[in-house]
Amino acid sequence: MAILFRKATKDDVPFIIQMLANDKLGKLREDYQNPLPQKYYEAFARIDTDPNQELVVVENEATEIIGTLQLSFIPYLTYQGGIRAQIEAVRIREDVRGTGIGHQMFEWAIERARQRKAHLVQLTTDKSRPEALHFYEKLGFKATHEGMKLHLDLPIG
Amino acid sequence: MAILFRKATKDDVPFIIQMLANDKLGKLREDYQNPLPQKYYEAFARIDTDPNQELVVVENEATEIIGTLQLSFIPYLTYQGGIRAQIEAVRIREDVRGTGIGHQMFEWAIERARQRKAHLVQLTTDKSRPEALHFYEKLGFKATHEGMKLHLDLPIG
Repeated sequence: MAILFRKATKDDVPFIIQMLANDKLGKLREDYQNPLPQKYYEAFARIDTDPNQELVVVENEATEIIGTLQLSFIPYLTYQGGIRAQIEAVRIREDVRGTGIGHQMFEWAIERARQRKAHLVQLTTDKSRPEALHFYEKLGFKATHEGMKLHLDLPIG
Repeated sequence: MAILFRKATKDDVPFIIQMLANDKLGKLREDYQNPLPQKYYEAFARIDTDPNQELVVVENEATEIIGTLQLSFIPYLTYQGGIRAQIEAVRIREDVRGTGIGHQMFEWAIERARQRKAHLVQLTTDKSRPEALHFYEKLGFKATHEGMKLHLDLPIG
């Protein structure tokens, strides 16, 4: 299947949030309504104006949005001043899961990381998604680290 | 002990790299020489000009640098448009390890994350440092995720 990768625009935000919310973990966290709450557009503006963030959508041949991911390029002093690419917020539209699109999305993201001279691609995956771990291992990722989270008690949104 | 947190300046870079290199994993990755290779100053400029990066040093009463960490604030659409604070590149000067400075540094970083309205503080810790895992758990972090890394075959530096 021919798919196209492009930078997300403001008009894509409702489609992206719909995908983020249609997920066993995402449905507990998101606030998908029509019209979409303004806080999502404010967040989009923060991402869109930051040159180290690339929010990406995947389109099928009918120009429908069938996937999304966010790449962050983080500059560090470590590794002799290396840049890391971090992948987060990956979702695939429910009806096209299991068709190999996820694999194509990660191949694209890894190539994009090389273009931007990243020496390392990193992500964290929730331990409650064991199938995702296996998927990432097939792509060459190694689970060498613990991914630790501390939720602050701010109200969401 | 009274310690002071401040944003790192260009003049601090050699002291930071010395600490990064004086570590069982860091010594395999860094290139600490006098004078310091230019690539570290180029990386410092990338960090210093990015408003979402805060490279921090800790000073003792004699204004010596005894610790460092980097905070990255990453904007996402997930969690209703939340901002995450990510902590990386944490080091403490060898002679003051085990004195509680690490705990003070993390308390400072978590407070800084609150100030910048982050809803989540995250980090990854190498599984070859089991003592670090315990340290982070005492601070309230939960190891809910696998931290996955893919090293690209670019030459370092």
